[in-house]
Amino acid sequence: MNCEIIGVGTELLLGDIVNTDAQYLARELAAMGIVIHYQEVVGDNPERMRACISSAVSRSDLVILTGGLGPTADDLTKEISCEVMGAELVLDKDILEGIRAYFSSKGIVMPENNAKQAYVPKGGTVFVNRNGTAPGCAVEKGGKIVIMLPGPPRELKPMFENEVKPYLAKKTGGIILSKQVRTFGIGESDMAQRVAELLDGVNPTVAPYAKDGEALLRVTAKAETYEQASLMCDEVIEKIREKIGEYIYSTDSCNLEQTVVRLLKENGKKIALAESCTGGYIAKRITDIAGSSEVFEYGIVSYSNEVKQRLLGVKTETLEKYTEVSAQTAAEMAEGVRKLSGADFGISVTGISGPGGASEDKPVGLSYIGFSYDGGTQVREVRTGKKQDAREYNRYVSASNALHMIVQYFNERNE
Amino acid sequence: MNCEIIGVGTELLLGDIVNTDAQYLARELAAMGIVIHYQEVVGDNPERMRACISSAVSRSDLVILTGGLGPTADDLTKEISCEVMGAELVLDKDILEGIRAYFSSKGIVMPENNAKQAYVPKGGTVFVNRNGTAPGCAVEKGGKIVIMLPGPPRELKPMFENEVKPYLAKKTGGIILSKQVRTFGIGESDMAQRVAELLDGVNPTVAPYAKDGEALLRVTAKAETYEQASLMCDEVIEKIREKIGEYIYSTDSCNLEQTVVRLLKENGKKIALAESCTGGYIAKRITDIAGSSEVFEYGIVSYSNEVKQRLLGVKTETLEKYTEVSAQTAAEMAEGVRKLSGADFGISVTGISGPGGASEDKPVGLSYIGFSYDGGTQVREVRTGKKQDAREYNRYVSASNALHMIVQYFNERNE
Repeated sequence: MNCEIIGVGTELLLGDIVNTDAQYLARELAAMGIVIHYQEVVGDNPERMRACISSAVSRSDLVILTGGLGPTADDLTKEISCEVMGAELVLDKDILEGIRAYFSSKGIVMPENNAKQAYVPKGGTVFVNRNGTAPGCAVEKGGKIVIMLPGPPRELKPMFENEVKPYLAKKTGGIILSKQVRTFGIGESDMAQRVAELLDGVNPTVAPYAKDGEALLRVTAKAETYEQASLMCDEVIEKIREKIGEYIYSTDSCNLEQTVVRLLKENGKKIALAESCTGGYIAKRITDIAGSSEVFEYGIVSYSNEVKQRLLGVKTETLEKYTEVSAQTAAEMAEGVRKLSGADFGISVTGISGPGGASEDKPVGLSYIGFSYDGGTQVREVRTGKKQDAREYNRYVSASNALHMIVQYFNERNE
Repeated sequence: MNCEIIGVGTELLLGDIVNTDAQYLARELAAMGIVIHYQEVVGDNPERMRACISSAVSRSDLVILTGGLGPTADDLTKEISCEVMGAELVLDKDILEGIRAYFSSKGIVMPENNAKQAYVPKGGTVFVNRNGTAPGCAVEKGGKIVIMLPGPPRELKPMFENEVKPYLAKKTGGIILSKQVRTFGIGESDMAQRVAELLDGVNPTVAPYAKDGEALLRVTAKAETYEQASLMCDEVIEKIREKIGEYIYSTDSCNLEQTVVRLLKENGKKIALAESCTGGYIAKRITDIAGSSEVFEYGIVSYSNEVKQRLLGVKTETLEKYTEVSAQTAAEMAEGVRKLSGADFGISVTGISGPGGASEDKPVGLSYIGFSYDGGTQVREVRTGKKQDAREYNRYVSASNALHMIVQYFNERNE
C-alpha cells in the first residue's frame, strides 16, 4: 500500500505553522509498512485542493489529509474530498451532541458554526475526537482510501493512535521497520565514508543524515513480520557498531535526553544543573521526559556573575583571571551546584551563544561544559564554528554536549 | 510570480525530520509578494523526483528545492533538476577550493566525496554557502526558474537572506504583505465569530488560526508598494482591535517571549524565575531572545519540595496544608525568588504536566502561576483540560501563561 499525505491550510502554505503532522504521520506509517511517496501542502483554495486530491487519489492507494476540518467557512477538506470521492456529507446527530457536550464541559455554549463539524461522509468510517470538536473520517471507493484528520497535533495524534491505526492495520499486510543509529561527535560525511559499504544495501537500506549537530543512520528492512524485520535491522546495526561504535549513543530511537534520564534512573543517580549560556535549555530538555523528576535534583540559570559567585561559589579570582567563559569557571560552577544540591553529578555550561558577547579569542559558538562527580571534575570545550544566526544552534549543541558528557561517563564505566 | 517549494529527502518523507525549511521559505516568499500554491516532499528516488520537479516546473514560475545537495550518492537534487531543465553540470574549481578551505579551517582534510558538491549548472547562478559545504544554485529556462538550496536550516537561511532574496527581488514586481494579530486567552472559534464580518474581505484577507494554545489572525494585503500594503493591513487591524482588543498582545509578529523581553527592557525591569512543572521552559524561552540577559536576573528549576523550602523559603505549613500544587505555594515561590534575586518581578509555576502526578481534584493540566511585584502578588490558575499525551502542551501553555502575566501587568498600567 502506498500513501501520500496532504496538509491543508493557508497557514501551512504561507509558513505560519510548521507541518509537524506530516512528520508524525510519515514516521508512524513507515513503521506500519505503508510506503510514503509524496507529501504535499495545499491552501484553502477549492480548485487547487480539488486538483491536489484528485492527483493523489489517482496515483496512491491511501491519501491522508490533515487540517481543514474546522468550523470556519474556509475549512473545506471534507467537502472537496467527498466531492472527489463521490460521497455525500450527512449530519451525524450523535457527533453533534458530542460537540455540544465538549463545549458544555468547558462551561461554554457551542458556537453555531461548529455544527458544520458534525457532517460526515455517508457510508464512511468516523474517527472520534476526544481532544477537540472535529471528528476524523475515512471514505473508500474503487480500492482507494481517503482519510481526513484534524490539524492540531494534540487532536490528530491520539486519533491516529487509537482509531486510525487499527483501521489501517486491517488493510495492510507485511511490514517495513526502521531503526535509528544515533551518534554524537562525528560528522555526517565522515560517518558515511566509514560505513560506505553498507550504504549500497537494498534490504535493509542504510541512509545517513544529519540533525541538530548529530549524525544518524536510518536502517530500514522489509519483511513478512515485525520480528524478521527487526532481526534484519539488528544484524546491520551490529556491522555499523563495528565501524563507528565509539560514537553511537543510542539504537532504540531515544534522543540524548531520553538516554540520559534512562541511564541516571538505571544507575540510581541524580543531577543538578548550573546553566549560563544555555539559559535553562538543558533543564527544559531533561524535564521534557516524563518521570525526570526522579533524577533531576534542580537547576540554576545563572546568567550573571553575581549569581555564579553567590549561589554557586565561583571564586572572584577565577572570574577575574580566566573570565566567566573559561574551563576554570565551568569547573567551579559544576562543583558548586553539585555541592549546593547534594546531587551525584553537577553539570555546568558557560559560553557565548551569540550574536553578542564575543571577543578576539572567545568567538560565538565557544562554550565550556563542566561535569563534576564523586572522583573529579571534567571540562569539555565546545566550538560549534557557527557564528551568524546561530544562537539556537549554539545553545542546542552546547546542551547536547552537556547531556553527552553524562552518557560518556556511564559508557566509560560499562566498557 | 507563483511558486512551489519541494523538500527533497527520504528523511523528510519518512518523518525523521520536520520540514522547517518549507515554513521558513513560505513565510519569506509570501512577504516578498511571491504566491505559493503548493509545497511537496519527495524522497531520494530519481523517478519520483523527476516526476515531481517536471510537474512543478510545468505549473509554476518558480520552483525552490531544498535538500539533496549533500556529498553522498543519494543526494540527487542538482542532477535531476538540471536534467529536467536541460542544463549541464560542470566542476567549479573556486567552489572546490572553498570546500577544501572550509574543512581545513576545522582542521580536517576534505573527504573526497565532498568534491561532488562543487559541480554547478553551466550558465546558472551560484549562491555561496558560508555555513557549510554545499553551494546553492539557480537555473533559468523558458521563463521558469529552479532554485536549489541546501537542507540544513543554518545553511539555508543565511543563503536565502543574503543571496537568494536579492536575486528574486530583481524578478518580481508588486508586494503581498501579511501581518499577524496575536491573542492570548480566547479560543479560535470564539475569536472567529467575533470578527466574522472581517473574514469575508478580499483585500486584505483575514484568516483565523490556532497555534500552541493561542488564537491568531493573519491579515494579508496586496498592493503596489510595501507602504500601501502595510497601511491596508493596519486599517483592518484597527477594526480587529475594536472587537477583541483586550486579548491582543502583539501585532508586530513578536511572540510572547519577544514581547516580554521588549516590555521589560523598555521599562527597565528585571525578572527572576522559580519553575517547578515547566522545568526551565520559561527560562529557555526567554533566553532564546538575544539580549535577554539584560532583563533576566536568574532562574531556579525547583522540582523538589526541599528546594522550594531551602532556596525559595516556601513554608512547611503551606506545603502541608495546601500541597505543592496550589495558589499559596505558587505565591510563596514567586515572592521567594523575587527576594532571593533582588529582581523587580518574581515569576513561579507549579503544576501537573502529566502523565503522572494527578489526583482527583488536581488533574493533569492544572498549574498555578505566581507573579510577585512591588505592590503585591497575583496568582493565575491554569487548566488546559488536556490530559493525555499532553506533557509538552501543558508545559508550553503554563509557560505561556507565565509570560502573559508579565504582558498583562504592563498593559494594565499603560491603559
